[in-house]
Amino acid sequence: MGLIYLDHLAATPLHPRVKEAMINYIENVYGNPSSDHQMGQAPAQALERAREQVAALINAADPKEVVFESGGTESVNHALKGVAIGLREKGRHIITSNIEHKAVLNSLRTLRLLDYRVTSLDVDNYGLVDPAAVEKAITPDTILISVMLANNEIGTIEPIADIAKIAQKHKIVMHTDAVAATGVIPVDVRQLGVNLLSLAANQFYGPPGVGALYIKKGTPVWALLDGGLQENKRRAGTENLIGIVGMGMAAEVAKAEMPELVPRLQALKDRLAKGLLERIPEIKINGHPTQCLPHLLSVSVEYVEGESLMLMLDDEDIVVATRSACASGSLRASHVLIGTGLDFATAQGTLVFTLGRDNTEADIDRVLAVMPGIVQTLRDMSPLYKKEHAM
Amino acid sequence: MGLIYLDHLAATPLHPRVKEAMINYIENVYGNPSSDHQMGQAPAQALERAREQVAALINAADPKEVVFESGGTESVNHALKGVAIGLREKGRHIITSNIEHKAVLNSLRTLRLLDYRVTSLDVDNYGLVDPAAVEKAITPDTILISVMLANNEIGTIEPIADIAKIAQKHKIVMHTDAVAATGVIPVDVRQLGVNLLSLAANQFYGPPGVGALYIKKGTPVWALLDGGLQENKRRAGTENLIGIVGMGMAAEVAKAEMPELVPRLQALKDRLAKGLLERIPEIKINGHPTQCLPHLLSVSVEYVEGESLMLMLDDEDIVVATRSACASGSLRASHVLIGTGLDFATAQGTLVFTLGRDNTEADIDRVLAVMPGIVQTLRDMSPLYKKEHAM
Repeated sequence: MGLIYLDHLAATPLHPRVKEAMINYIENVYGNPSSDHQMGQAPAQALERAREQVAALINAADPKEVVFESGGTESVNHALKGVAIGLREKGRHIITSNIEHKAVLNSLRTLRLLDYRVTSLDVDNYGLVDPAAVEKAITPDTILISVMLANNEIGTIEPIADIAKIAQKHKIVMHTDAVAATGVIPVDVRQLGVNLLSLAANQFYGPPGVGALYIKKGTPVWALLDGGLQENKRRAGTENLIGIVGMGMAAEVAKAEMPELVPRLQALKDRLAKGLLERIPEIKINGHPTQCLPHLLSVSVEYVEGESLMLMLDDEDIVVATRSACASGSLRASHVLIGTGLDFATAQGTLVFTLGRDNTEADIDRVLAVMPGIVQTLRDMSPLYKKEHAM
Repeated sequence: MGLIYLDHLAATPLHPRVKEAMINYIENVYGNPSSDHQMGQAPAQALERAREQVAALINAADPKEVVFESGGTESVNHALKGVAIGLREKGRHIITSNIEHKAVLNSLRTLRLLDYRVTSLDVDNYGLVDPAAVEKAITPDTILISVMLANNEIGTIEPIADIAKIAQKHKIVMHTDAVAATGVIPVDVRQLGVNLLSLAANQFYGPPGVGALYIKKGTPVWALLDGGLQENKRRAGTENLIGIVGMGMAAEVAKAEMPELVPRLQALKDRLAKGLLERIPEIKINGHPTQCLPHLLSVSVEYVEGESLMLMLDDEDIVVATRSACASGSLRASHVLIGTGLDFATAQGTLVFTLGRDNTEADIDRVLAVMPGIVQTLRDMSPLYKKEHAM
């Protein structure tokens, strides 16, 4: 029995066409796209082609609005800190939500230390941010609103277009962390109406450590990395071209494959959710029942430690996560799950399944065959479970 | 006749062993090194192996002192901005030199706008910074000294160990931009005595867009990228593992090949310098005659535009630079050459040759055969040259 990989949030395997594009670049091209001599031409063309591919994925009006970054984290840091510094004379208040990725929350923590004020909004039990609450939080010196497009732990898709309309009305810059969403579901920066959008290649079968920031023309955002004139003066530094070429191809493939892939993953997810609910008592599916990423299922299992469950599934060659890999190493309960109102113990018993293009119904059925027994084994070791289920 | 590539500063071709390591990773490994399940193990091992390889190249006491970055530019930004913010309560004065790379100068420009003060020191005609001038510039609120190890346009190697001793004496953090030097000449962070050192893989046959910052244990430097707990909490973001694996292998190979490569490149450079001086009148070799990178030759050709010379050599399939590729797109004369006292016209007539491991004596001899004719052609079109050389 082969490995069943259900942690596509931590890393997607490279798409065969991405591998091919990257290996081709490694074997055949070198040079610096900024060079004025002949050896700059192929790299410069590869860079601009990738920029067009990413622009097409998110429907940017102009490829120049796409700035390559070293991943989703840099993209978010660039957006938040770049606007904060760019507009520091205008105001020092930023609005966000309680369930953002650590890249957002910790960038804002740094800005707080540098005398910015942050309003972090509660979400409902599904993890939804209320656009009316955003509007209510606006003050005369609000310079930025940052709310994620889809949550990376529970999958809930936020009403970004509605929030962006409010931001526009009040002339406030709007950023969305779309790392968990872009390449997974259709993302259209013009339909969303945002000024800034962050994405990362390793969410859609591209390489890790490569991302992009969409910067709508005219948005006041400082560079985070100062130096040369690369990336239309938005981000200095010699480009990670091998990775960028991979990201470009991944974007092209994601756009092409999404119409087939989204319903297929949704069906697998539904099969997994239904099967687990039927087979294991006292579990809870987290996130919004319909406004949710089609490939992500968050399940809280009462009386069980998520970590133990994950490791026992790992022994069965079923690979899942307990939360975002970026939060790994932290012992605290997920701030996302606590934010949706889960109690600490239930939050600690949570698994996040993220499905991918290679997964099959057989994979799901194997999870459904194996997991109930593991859960029961763990519950049988729980004093609390035994006490509450004593005859 | 094949291409003669003499612009290794802009980009080095990947070493065959680097290609092999990267392609092997692309074809066989995926997963996130932060994952606690089995798919995190191979990436985590690859990451730590690369860290050990880079630590060995610069003789770091502990691999944990090596933080991977998205290139030399991010490394420099991290060092300068990270110390500035980390020590902002202690002081707001920074000392640097006039001939630093744009990553340093423009990071400091940003810090100036955020109310830091910068003293930028003059250099002598060879481009040398005077350690005594550094000591004289120190004020009670000096928090950081940043001087490059070797200049990327003229090759001059600065007296960093001496400057670092002064920094230590005054308890000031010392950073050196060693991007142009590391992997080219032996670099030992302990012998240098610096707290922070920046390097980039694409200077030593590794991939572009990957670098590292050496952070000596105990150095007060904030993260530039906030988010997850990666890189021992020094730099958030999912790692560019394909690039990092390439950088690690490049570091290992550079350390092994340097003893053979350095004298070979120095001999080629000497042959080129001697040949040009013999064949072309009214030229000047820039930089220090002995304390200089062994692979870099900067030559100013009077009465000629460097750009025209570069393009005509390019037509002959000889690829050289007029300056750092990072400064490409700027129309101003090189601040480095002006800093060493060259006049504007002479600075504009400058070519930078950077040699690499594949170059041969035959390559040099072809440059020596072709370049005098091109220079004469260009000079014959110069009204100033004709006026000053009229019979």
